[in-house]
Amino acid sequence: MQLWKKNVREVEPYVPGEQPLDTKVIKLNTNENPYPPSPLVLKAAEELARKGADQLRKYPDPGAKKLIQTLSAYHGVWPENVFVGVGSDDVLSIAFLTFFNSDKKILFPDVTYSFYPVWANVYDIPFKKVRTDEDFRIHAEDYKVPNGGIVIPNPNAPTGISLKPGDIEEIVRSNPASVVIIDEAYIDFGGETALELTREYDNLLVVRTFSKSRSLAGLRVGYAIGNEALIDAMNSVKFSINSYTMNVPSIHMGCASVNDKEYFSKCIRQIKDTRDYTVENLERLKFKVLPSDANFVFATHIRYKAEDIFKALKERKIFVRYFKQPRIDNYLRITIGTDEEMRKFFKALRDILHGFDISF
Amino acid sequence: MQLWKKNVREVEPYVPGEQPLDTKVIKLNTNENPYPPSPLVLKAAEELARKGADQLRKYPDPGAKKLIQTLSAYHGVWPENVFVGVGSDDVLSIAFLTFFNSDKKILFPDVTYSFYPVWANVYDIPFKKVRTDEDFRIHAEDYKVPNGGIVIPNPNAPTGISLKPGDIEEIVRSNPASVVIIDEAYIDFGGETALELTREYDNLLVVRTFSKSRSLAGLRVGYAIGNEALIDAMNSVKFSINSYTMNVPSIHMGCASVNDKEYFSKCIRQIKDTRDYTVENLERLKFKVLPSDANFVFATHIRYKAEDIFKALKERKIFVRYFKQPRIDNYLRITIGTDEEMRKFFKALRDILHGFDISF
Repeated sequence: MQLWKKNVREVEPYVPGEQPLDTKVIKLNTNENPYPPSPLVLKAAEELARKGADQLRKYPDPGAKKLIQTLSAYHGVWPENVFVGVGSDDVLSIAFLTFFNSDKKILFPDVTYSFYPVWANVYDIPFKKVRTDEDFRIHAEDYKVPNGGIVIPNPNAPTGISLKPGDIEEIVRSNPASVVIIDEAYIDFGGETALELTREYDNLLVVRTFSKSRSLAGLRVGYAIGNEALIDAMNSVKFSINSYTMNVPSIHMGCASVNDKEYFSKCIRQIKDTRDYTVENLERLKFKVLPSDANFVFATHIRYKAEDIFKALKERKIFVRYFKQPRIDNYLRITIGTDEEMRKFFKALRDILHGFDISF
Repeated sequence: MQLWKKNVREVEPYVPGEQPLDTKVIKLNTNENPYPPSPLVLKAAEELARKGADQLRKYPDPGAKKLIQTLSAYHGVWPENVFVGVGSDDVLSIAFLTFFNSDKKILFPDVTYSFYPVWANVYDIPFKKVRTDEDFRIHAEDYKVPNGGIVIPNPNAPTGISLKPGDIEEIVRSNPASVVIIDEAYIDFGGETALELTREYDNLLVVRTFSKSRSLAGLRVGYAIGNEALIDAMNSVKFSINSYTMNVPSIHMGCASVNDKEYFSKCIRQIKDTRDYTVENLERLKFKVLPSDANFVFATHIRYKAEDIFKALKERKIFVRYFKQPRIDNYLRITIGTDEEMRKFFKALRDILHGFDISF
C-alpha cells in the first residue's frame, strides 16, 4: 500500500486525439492544418541554428515581449492587452485558475470542447453545462443566469457552428460580474470575432491559437486578448506557476509566422475551398453535415453508425475523430485536409459505405 | 468598479532574476551556464529548419516519448519512471498540485528556492518553513514531524550547500505517507544524487533541469524521475492541464543535448575550476563564502553591505542576485561565469571595495 496516495489529487484527464508515429496515416483527427507553416518560420529556425547559442543558453525573456509586441501590432491593440502561453490550452488553463475562483458554477455548452470540464475538475471549479438546442445552437438568453464565469468557443467545437452575431455582446453585457471567455481557436476559418468588443467590455477575454490557422500545432503557442486588468491578473497567476513558459524557439518562430500575412491568407482560403468540396461530397453520400465555420466538419450518416465508419476508416489508415459522448455519439469530426487527402478520404468512404450497403 | 474582480485568485507571484536586453551586461544573476549548449543542439535546430515543417504543423507527441526514452536510457531507468515538463518549474508545479493535496502542512527549508511558497499559495497548500541551522545547513531530524509532503533542493539554493550523505534517505524513510521531492537543479555541479534511492523508495521524486548544467535555459526542459506510480499520478494531472506541453524544438533539441556526454562533462569540469578560482578570490577580498556544490556561490562581506555591493556592481553592468529576505539579506548570490567574466567581475569588485575603504 502506497501511503502517500491518499494525498494525491484525483483527476480524469483529457484524452487528446491520437498522434500516430506512422507517417502514412491520413490524419483528419486533430484539426491540424494540412499545409506547412510559413517559410519565414523555417527561416527563423535556421537563424536560431546559426546564431541562437547564446539565446538558448540564457533564460528567455519571461514577458516574451517580442512575441507580445508582434501580436499586439498585428491586432492593433496594446501589448498590455496580450497574454501568451504554451498553446491555447495553457492560456485557457491559466484563465480558469485566475478568473473562476468562486463557489458559483461556471457555464459552458453541453456540447463543446471536452477540456473545459477537465480544467474545472482539476482546479475544483463547480460547473453547469448549458444545453444547446436540437441543432446544437447556443442561445444568449441561456447564459443570463447566476454564474461564476462563462466559457464558449466560437465557432463551437466539435460542431463548427458559430454564434449568432450580437449574441456574444449580449452575453458579455448581461454578465458584468463574470469573466466571459470566448475561445476563438477556429475563428480564422469563419464566424465573427469578438476582438473589437474587448475594447468596450472589461470582462471579455478572447483566446486564440497558432495550432490551427497558423499550421504550428508543434510549436505550442496560444494567446489571449482582453482588458489590461484581465491580462494583469493572468500574469500574476502565470508568474506564480512558471516564470518562463515560452521557450526561445516558440518566441522567435512564432513572430515569424505572424509576420507572413500573405501566406496565412492563402492557406485559409484554400482550406475554406476544400471545406466546401468536403461538405458537398459528404451530403452526396447521405451525411447530414452541421454548418461549419471551422477547419473541420461534424457529420452524421442517415443510415450507418458513426462508430462503425470511424473504425472502418481507421483500418484504412484514415484517422477522423469520434466522441463516445451523449448527443454526439453518432457524429464524426472530420478535419479538412489537402484536396488530395480529401479525395483519398472520399474514395475510402465510398468503398466503406458501399460495403455496408451490400450487407445492409 | 470591475465586478468580476471578486472571483479573481489573489497571488503573490515569484519574481525571476532580471533578463536585461542589453547584451553587454555580465550576467551572473540567474545561474545560467556561461558556455553555449552542445553543438549537437544547434545541429538539431538546423535539421528542424531543413525538414521540420511537417512536424511543426502537427501536434507534438503528447507523451514526448523520444525525449523520455533518451533520458531513461541516459539514467538507466525505465521510460515509465520519467516525467518531462517546461523547465523544472513546470515539473515542480505539477508535482505540488499532484502530491500536496491534503490539509497537512508541507515542509521546506526557511532558506531555499523562493518559488516553493509561491506554488503553495497558488494551489492553496498549507506550508511550514523548517529552520536551517546557523550555517544554513539542513538536518534530517527536523523533517520527522507530521507533514503533507516535503520539498528540499540538493544542493540547496541560494546557499549552494549539499545535504549530508544519508540525510535524504533518512528523510524519505521516515516519511512513508508523504511524497518527498528532491530538487536536483544543481546536482551536476556537486553533491550526491538521490536517483538510486528512487528504485527503493516509492515516495521519492527527483527533479532535474536542462537550464543549468546543459546550457539550455532558453529551451525550457525539466524532468522528474521516480516510481511509476508517482509518474502516473503526475501525468494524470498534466493531461488535465495541457496535453502537449513540450514543443517540437524542445523535444528534438533536448534529445541532442543528452546525447553529447563529452561536451557536457567538459563544461561541468570547467565551471568547477572557475568556482574554485572564484571562492579563492572572494575570500582574499574578505568575503565569507558558503561551501558551494552548485554553479554559484553565496557570499557575504565581513565589512560592507551586500545591497551596496550589488548596486555598485549593477552600475558597472555586472548583475548578481540579491535577495531582500530575512537571514540572507547581507549575502550575494554570484553565478559562476567564464574565466574572463570572473576576471572582469573581480576587477570591478576590487574597485568597488577600494572605493568603500576610502570612504569608510
